Amino acid sequence: MKKMMKISILAICMFTLLTSAVNAKPSSAVNAKPLHHTQKGWIVPQRFLPVPSAASEALQEILSKLHQPDIRRAISQTPKDKAEWSEMVESQKGMMTEYIKMYAKEMSVKVEKDRIGTVKIYRVTPINIAPEHSKHLFIYIHGGAYIFGSGDAGLPEAIMIASRIGIPVISVDYRTAPKDPFPAAVEDMTALYKALLKSHPASSIAIGGSSSGGGLALASIHRFKSLGLDLPAAIYAGTPWSDLTKRGDSYFINEGIDHKLITYDGFLEAAAKLYANGTDLKDPLLSPIYGNFDRFPPTYLVTGTRDLFLSNTIRVHRKLRESGVEADLNVYEGFSHVEYLVAKNSPEAHEIYKELGEFLKKHLSDSDVSLSF
Amino acid sequence: MKKMMKISILAICMFTLLTSAVNAKPSSAVNAKPLHHTQKGWIVPQRFLPVPSAASEALQEILSKLHQPDIRRAISQTPKDKAEWSEMVESQKGMMTEYIKMYAKEMSVKVEKDRIGTVKIYRVTPINIAPEHSKHLFIYIHGGAYIFGSGDAGLPEAIMIASRIGIPVISVDYRTAPKDPFPAAVEDMTALYKALLKSHPASSIAIGGSSSGGGLALASIHRFKSLGLDLPAAIYAGTPWSDLTKRGDSYFINEGIDHKLITYDGFLEAAAKLYANGTDLKDPLLSPIYGNFDRFPPTYLVTGTRDLFLSNTIRVHRKLRESGVEADLNVYEGFSHVEYLVAKNSPEAHEIYKELGEFLKKHLSDSDVSLSF
Repeated sequence: MKKMMKISILAICMFTLLTSAVNAKPSSAVNAKPLHHTQKGWIVPQRFLPVPSAASEALQEILSKLHQPDIRRAISQTPKDKAEWSEMVESQKGMMTEYIKMYAKEMSVKVEKDRIGTVKIYRVTPINIAPEHSKHLFIYIHGGAYIFGSGDAGLPEAIMIASRIGIPVISVDYRTAPKDPFPAAVEDMTALYKALLKSHPASSIAIGGSSSGGGLALASIHRFKSLGLDLPAAIYAGTPWSDLTKRGDSYFINEGIDHKLITYDGFLEAAAKLYANGTDLKDPLLSPIYGNFDRFPPTYLVTGTRDLFLSNTIRVHRKLRESGVEADLNVYEGFSHVEYLVAKNSPEAHEIYKELGEFLKKHLSDSDVSLSF
Repeated sequence: MKKMMKISILAICMFTLLTSAVNAKPSSAVNAKPLHHTQKGWIVPQRFLPVPSAASEALQEILSKLHQPDIRRAISQTPKDKAEWSEMVESQKGMMTEYIKMYAKEMSVKVEKDRIGTVKIYRVTPINIAPEHSKHLFIYIHGGAYIFGSGDAGLPEAIMIASRIGIPVISVDYRTAPKDPFPAAVEDMTALYKALLKSHPASSIAIGGSSSGGGLALASIHRFKSLGLDLPAAIYAGTPWSDLTKRGDSYFINEGIDHKLITYDGFLEAAAKLYANGTDLKDPLLSPIYGNFDRFPPTYLVTGTRDLFLSNTIRVHRKLRESGVEADLNVYEGFSHVEYLVAKNSPEAHEIYKELGEFLKKHLSDSDVSLSF
């Protein structure tokens, strides 16, 4: 048995035949700068990360103009308490209003503020609705770490989806922390969805968003399932915040590489706790990765090689596939978190919404009869 | 217009609202150790990479026992010339023979050395062929950077595929560098495939492998297309070496993180040049990413968050999707290059071959009529 194991290990080493260094002792140069840690693992040395030459020129141009992500500064700028968070939220109110008006016009989309029951929403309607989506509805959930993105600040991607896919969108202006922590957001989603089911069959509804919006979409499905509701026909999970704890390989690999999020430490960690407000971060309604994905609707997922949430995305993909759910994973070269909202006119961003549109067309139905489980 | 742009940038920054550090100046601590480079990009500071706690316990146990990948040592151990390469190849001959015999027995697979025309092969036949695959054939192409893996050393994954999927496998013992550089391997694949088409409809044939084996599978399809041959019904591209140049984000991000390949510099770079033997590395028969993927067969792709070939894999996935080809991308948490061959009894490795089996079942046909284009 021991011999078999020895030979087996040899065989493994032989197979890729590039393994001479696998069991090598760390060099003294690397050992010279030990980091403090208690977990098992490795030190990854400093390296130069070039602008990704295999990405589109549009993305390369954007990335080549950015300064190096500064991990320490990102951490140091995290608000220290609820008052500082509230102050930051207040200071940003209304900053997007003028831009959203112009952007909606540029994208030929009509934006109307409304309310369904107690839940604030925006109706984001393309001037030219695609014939195949005339009876469909996309429930859009904005990002912003459950703290930011309220009001019209949450509309840029809702406008993109409405415009590029030609589908009517309801963008949910759900309640956010620190004023209204968990479970307010999930409650808003549930109340809204129940109300919409009265006028729309579940089979005609898609749900989704990016970052915490993608996470909230997945958490909402967990909630809808537990309530026995008919489920939407498709999910869009754009680099979803599926695990609010610092669990996931890419939290470590892509620290200082993702130019949008930079690091989990500081901002994300604090936002997670602020939103959770004492509830265990591993509650599936907070970190949907810890839930059961059986019977989930078909899901379209997007992430990138530099995304701090790469693991958040691929772990959801695996969970869905293990539950036998159709799940379509797409990883973009050189993309940091929600890069498609930064490089929004890049070929990659166009590709994402084109494919998402095809995915919705495939899975949404005009039928009045919902698929019920 | 300029105002619109300014506001647009503001909007982008507002959207994720985590961007205060994006335009931050690099800190002096980071600047203190500049790396020499001419390209645009960033310096990524040294970091600690823990064993991935969201991976299976089996994988965590394997990774927790490995020493830190040593980039300098990996580079320094690269053979210096053809003679040294040949010597390394010779020194490893026969080392796998005993292991392969035991492993085939353990996996209930029969291995027979044979020849089809001038091409050396192994018939790797499961004792229990799955009824759905009784008329199917899997052409397996081993890895080893186009230099190693000849003879029975190339059989471990062929045995896994035969055993776990229950499909008859022909493992190709194609000619390798430095003795027989490019295009010998592609010529062997073509001769073999043409011969097999006489007894098997293309619709009953799958083709694939890992690493350079996955790359050679993709390159072979480019070649089959140009010859007007009926194409196989499905491709398996396990972390394929699709770009032999150092192009791809993960060559940089996962350097020193991937414990199998460690770095492109040194070994892979030298192997690519040795195999190419003067042909442009961007020739699609060497680096299949540079070819046209129209009409490619449905493709199942596997990679991992630590894979030096993550970009090699996701770039192929995007190319296939852009060509309208069904392509199924799967990214595993904590996986380095071909980790499923290291952690071969992990839940992840079982999942991969189970899903690959389902993929083959879906796409292979028993029909005698090949799909012809």
